[in-house]
Amino acid sequence: MGSIDKERTIVGLAATDPSGHLSPYTFTLRNTGPEDVFIKVMCCGVCHTDIHQVKNDLGMSRYPMVPGHEVIGEVVEVGSEVTKFSAGDVVGVGCLVGCCRSCMACDSDIEQYCNKKIWSYNDVYTDGKPTQGGFAESMVVDQKFVVKIPDGMSPEQAAPLLCAGVTVYSPLNHFGLKKPGLRGGILGLGGVGHMGVKIAKAMGHHITVISSSDKKRVEALDHLGADDYLVSSDAAKMQEVADSLDYIIDTVPVNHPLEPYLSLLKVDGKLILMGVINTPLQFISPMVMLGRKVITGSFIGSMKETEEMLDFCKEKGLSSMIEVVNMDYVNTALERLEKNDVRYRFVVDVAGSKLLQQ
Amino acid sequence: MGSIDKERTIVGLAATDPSGHLSPYTFTLRNTGPEDVFIKVMCCGVCHTDIHQVKNDLGMSRYPMVPGHEVIGEVVEVGSEVTKFSAGDVVGVGCLVGCCRSCMACDSDIEQYCNKKIWSYNDVYTDGKPTQGGFAESMVVDQKFVVKIPDGMSPEQAAPLLCAGVTVYSPLNHFGLKKPGLRGGILGLGGVGHMGVKIAKAMGHHITVISSSDKKRVEALDHLGADDYLVSSDAAKMQEVADSLDYIIDTVPVNHPLEPYLSLLKVDGKLILMGVINTPLQFISPMVMLGRKVITGSFIGSMKETEEMLDFCKEKGLSSMIEVVNMDYVNTALERLEKNDVRYRFVVDVAGSKLLQQ
Repeated sequence: MGSIDKERTIVGLAATDPSGHLSPYTFTLRNTGPEDVFIKVMCCGVCHTDIHQVKNDLGMSRYPMVPGHEVIGEVVEVGSEVTKFSAGDVVGVGCLVGCCRSCMACDSDIEQYCNKKIWSYNDVYTDGKPTQGGFAESMVVDQKFVVKIPDGMSPEQAAPLLCAGVTVYSPLNHFGLKKPGLRGGILGLGGVGHMGVKIAKAMGHHITVISSSDKKRVEALDHLGADDYLVSSDAAKMQEVADSLDYIIDTVPVNHPLEPYLSLLKVDGKLILMGVINTPLQFISPMVMLGRKVITGSFIGSMKETEEMLDFCKEKGLSSMIEVVNMDYVNTALERLEKNDVRYRFVVDVAGSKLLQQ
Repeated sequence: MGSIDKERTIVGLAATDPSGHLSPYTFTLRNTGPEDVFIKVMCCGVCHTDIHQVKNDLGMSRYPMVPGHEVIGEVVEVGSEVTKFSAGDVVGVGCLVGCCRSCMACDSDIEQYCNKKIWSYNDVYTDGKPTQGGFAESMVVDQKFVVKIPDGMSPEQAAPLLCAGVTVYSPLNHFGLKKPGLRGGILGLGGVGHMGVKIAKAMGHHITVISSSDKKRVEALDHLGADDYLVSSDAAKMQEVADSLDYIIDTVPVNHPLEPYLSLLKVDGKLILMGVINTPLQFISPMVMLGRKVITGSFIGSMKETEEMLDFCKEKGLSSMIEVVNMDYVNTALERLEKNDVRYRFVVDVAGSKLLQQ
């Protein structure tokens, strides 16, 4: 399978400091190892986490950093041990590109909880080189962390499934909620939230979108197919919905009170946190004890669940709602995303952009 | 079955104001209705919740209040519809004496989560009269909320099982933890904590007692049979235990940080809160997300679980470790309990005390 010895020099868009501004950056990719897949990037979704990373909000950023972890691409070349993929396949890469393969999590096919997992970007690969993400011409990724995109699925619409999609699919699957007849709440209607409505509706749930304002009512009910819309400041309606939900997927990425939402859950209901929030969230213990309610969180999903989710979306005819933009629009997209000004996910058309000329 | 029409005047020990001091109090008990069991109280455990209630810590106290919700007594008389009990039986009464019988929780045999549950004391019964607890000569209780104490079990040692015992048994049972081979933590070694060690050990778990000081090391390891002892301020040992526990039963009844304990849990581990704490507990969301950890709580247990727990304790030869005191010692017992100065539960010998002469 060809050019194992050829190191490639490519161009991506990188942040070079916590301003988070992205600019062209030339770097090298490792040679295609026996287990590797060399992928020409077609497009890549823009996730709220990308903002945290490029701006060093989590205090763990390394620069230069090429973000992007909702990557769709075409296989160009595969290593000698790769059997699942061949040149020309349309494939996806999500948040992770490595794990230890020997811990309890890896043994249980939940490698997203491996303590030695390797992030798609802003991490260091086993060869000592920084990992770089999907806002770049190409990637080299171990076959374990590559998934095939089902035939007939639009690459741009598939991109957000690789993070936002599996992020909501995984907890619904894991916590025994992938069954019809449940009543769920989706708190926050961004990239993850909109996939939450779509996936949960496809599972046969009655879905209430919960928001701080009335702004997205029509979108939620008419465009996304939610069953109900609840403004959290509407005390009468909050009371009406109290004790009625089996779960809430809480996608809010900033600090917020938990108790109003715990009160909406029925006995044994689950509040599933999806937002990385580094200031303390608060609750009083009787709010969970008197109802055996659960506060938990979930982090993306496994490769196995990613494949299951793609099959589920294919079967149900689900896709994401996106705004496709060019590479030269990425900095504006990040600014707009920070203000939640997108319906519902930006996807960057990487292959269609004149990256080198920026 | 006798004196349905006879209203009884009895004496108990009641708090009359938020000082929480108990003094003799004469009150009446309702007639024995068709579903009722009239019980002569033998003994009654003293729970930390009793302190909260008599001192109005939860802001919901009604006086005069006769506390006591770990009641063992002898059946004196039963109503016409009562088939499970007869005069002479040794029975127990726990935290609840009523529920609506028609909600989802009642239909699911988890009546402890019924929104219309009636507490054994500091509540109002269906007849409009205040409920009064076990620090009294006798009680009249609906048969649904009465359990038979297995033959051969000491009444004094059985008393704490009715609250402390089922409080730890119920979540272990509900959350799928009643199976051998698990590693559990018990945080706090009071009345509930010591039953936690005993019950979890009897389920075949490796148990680490976690405490703020080294004071109870010998008791935990030598007297209660715990496998390990962890002082939460010992950073090296905390690091050693990190990511290793399937669950922690957190019995601490005052505010405390959750994050040190969340870090001890393995992936999918559960932090189960048992302490009613009305100031906000805190955590940051990545602590639960990156490991799909669960913060939950549990509230006593159902009558069905109380029966199961008593059978389990009988089968395993388990009992509580107690200090039996007289009625005239109750105020001192409450003071000592507040300082956690008891190994591990006070049980008041009600029948053996000269209550009327105090």
